[in-house]
Amino acid sequence: MRSIIRFETPVSIYAHASAVGGAEADGPLGALFDFHDPTDRFGADTWEKGEESLSRAVLNLALSRAGQSQDEIDLLFSGDLQNQCVASSAGCGSMGIPYCGLYGACSTSCEGLLLASLALSASRETRRVAVVTTSHNAAAERQFRLPLEYGGQRTPTAQWTATAGGAFLLARANEPTLDPVAPRITAALVGRALDSGVKDGANMGAAMAPAAADTILRFFSLSGERPYDYDRIVTGDLGAEGSALLVELLRENGLNLAGRHRDCGVLLFDPLKADVHAGGSGCGCSASVLSALFLPALERGELRRILFLATGALMSPSNLLQGGSILGIAPLVVLEAGKPKKGGTT
Amino acid sequence: MRSIIRFETPVSIYAHASAVGGAEADGPLGALFDFHDPTDRFGADTWEKGEESLSRAVLNLALSRAGQSQDEIDLLFSGDLQNQCVASSAGCGSMGIPYCGLYGACSTSCEGLLLASLALSASRETRRVAVVTTSHNAAAERQFRLPLEYGGQRTPTAQWTATAGGAFLLARANEPTLDPVAPRITAALVGRALDSGVKDGANMGAAMAPAAADTILRFFSLSGERPYDYDRIVTGDLGAEGSALLVELLRENGLNLAGRHRDCGVLLFDPLKADVHAGGSGCGCSASVLSALFLPALERGELRRILFLATGALMSPSNLLQGGSILGIAPLVVLEAGKPKKGGTT
Repeated sequence: MRSIIRFETPVSIYAHASAVGGAEADGPLGALFDFHDPTDRFGADTWEKGEESLSRAVLNLALSRAGQSQDEIDLLFSGDLQNQCVASSAGCGSMGIPYCGLYGACSTSCEGLLLASLALSASRETRRVAVVTTSHNAAAERQFRLPLEYGGQRTPTAQWTATAGGAFLLARANEPTLDPVAPRITAALVGRALDSGVKDGANMGAAMAPAAADTILRFFSLSGERPYDYDRIVTGDLGAEGSALLVELLRENGLNLAGRHRDCGVLLFDPLKADVHAGGSGCGCSASVLSALFLPALERGELRRILFLATGALMSPSNLLQGGSILGIAPLVVLEAGKPKKGGTT
Repeated sequence: MRSIIRFETPVSIYAHASAVGGAEADGPLGALFDFHDPTDRFGADTWEKGEESLSRAVLNLALSRAGQSQDEIDLLFSGDLQNQCVASSAGCGSMGIPYCGLYGACSTSCEGLLLASLALSASRETRRVAVVTTSHNAAAERQFRLPLEYGGQRTPTAQWTATAGGAFLLARANEPTLDPVAPRITAALVGRALDSGVKDGANMGAAMAPAAADTILRFFSLSGERPYDYDRIVTGDLGAEGSALLVELLRENGLNLAGRHRDCGVLLFDPLKADVHAGGSGCGCSASVLSALFLPALERGELRRILFLATGALMSPSNLLQGGSILGIAPLVVLEAGKPKKGGTT
């Protein structure tokens, strides 16, 4: 959409859940995730099947929090990084919920929230929509780069695909049974796939930062707002390299983020403790940090308004071998706190 | 959606285009496609990049038919079979239109039409949406099975990924500038990913037929209609094997398709001339046949109502090697003829 989509009836995220692997649980946000598996296997005997289990587990946890069964969900959007998005289709996709598979690389969490909001706005028949995204470090490394056993050296700009997943349940905010405290999606802006000529698969931050800058600049230009109208401007997984580039690109265009920018990939790991180079990445990175950190802050009223952009590097190993470049993309949703709790301190 | 989605304002497919490779152009529908390249390369030096060119070319042709530029399109849904859906992102996705990548395997054409209809119904800001899907035989064979040069023997149930693409431009049917003859999407039903235990990557028809049966049975159960309410019930690429299974599965459930079933994968090739075994498949198969055969029949008023289900085999080579099975999925849209031309013979 060339314009910002404003949802006449906002969409509530009425339940959500997150889960991570061992390295992520050891990071600064470790205590905030709903559960973790230090073996990264989630009960399966391969990394790939472990990610399928993770996909089902986070959705089941979100459902149990809402006191609902999968039969009460009308539609599921899901995606991941495995070829043919099989962690999603064989994971939560196999639970019998009408299913739409997405591929937005690491931007899939926000693409899903955006499409779920459109589906709820379009159709009265659709009352509850689930969004699930996951990623798995070991599955991604051997598919996109080298098997972990190879012990390849990584460059300083390389990022660390997070073993992580997030699940979100959405409904129209005027559903009478919903907790009014639930955070809301009030607007969205679809990202454009931008080719900045980056061909280095170990520098996804540089490929994604121009796309994030494009979406942010379009958003503020269209809305007439300024960064200080938002408590946080959250990107998915630009990492340290991409975050620095984003700030620079925006400054060149006259936009100062005024200390409001946070990046889930930077937040997920402690660079002094974990050897993650430029920071975390992966479809599960932004999803798990949104569920564990930012949505609870909105629920408690500590934050009131967030711009949330997941960032995707649309890259393919075979395309890079054929001389292609990595396109970046960054869809955006506006997240706002629900009604304050009575007697709350917000 | 557990219910059928009825679009209060129908969505018009106001322009569309198709293109195929050499084998498809030699088939029974050859003369109906808008253009073809007998080399299957579409001006590029690799099969994979040829599919990118195809993706841009079909969208550009649809745009030129509508007399529009890419800047007038608000949103693009696209997907293909290459890993990371790179034929779409580096193809039409790189044309600057706000982009949502999809992965529904060979069901992506219908998934895209369905989500485009939801987006148009949800948001007044969204006036024109494009849907593009492609597939390429040589790119798919070496990615999913074996390089063509290997000359592997194929089993009788194997299907032939079509080198083909289709592009569709959609808008709300009440846009005053639209040709009222344009076919309309009036309803939709999201598919469920079904695991029937099929693990043979050379028998996708068997994996997809139960999903197509599930969607068709749910549709008629929810709508109270019968197959004779539709002129055609079109599946995407069940092929000969899957089509026979579909008819049998429906008959077991008391539903007789009454000669109304057609399968794009069966229609695309002449089995006596082309060595395609059970028939065509691929994201581009249903898209190109819909654009070349069924939409023109609706435009001419020869057909009035069609159920269109693209069928997807959610399979991954690495997942099959790890003992996984192939899930089938079949989203559905109801296509209806627009207003008859004045003085027409319909």
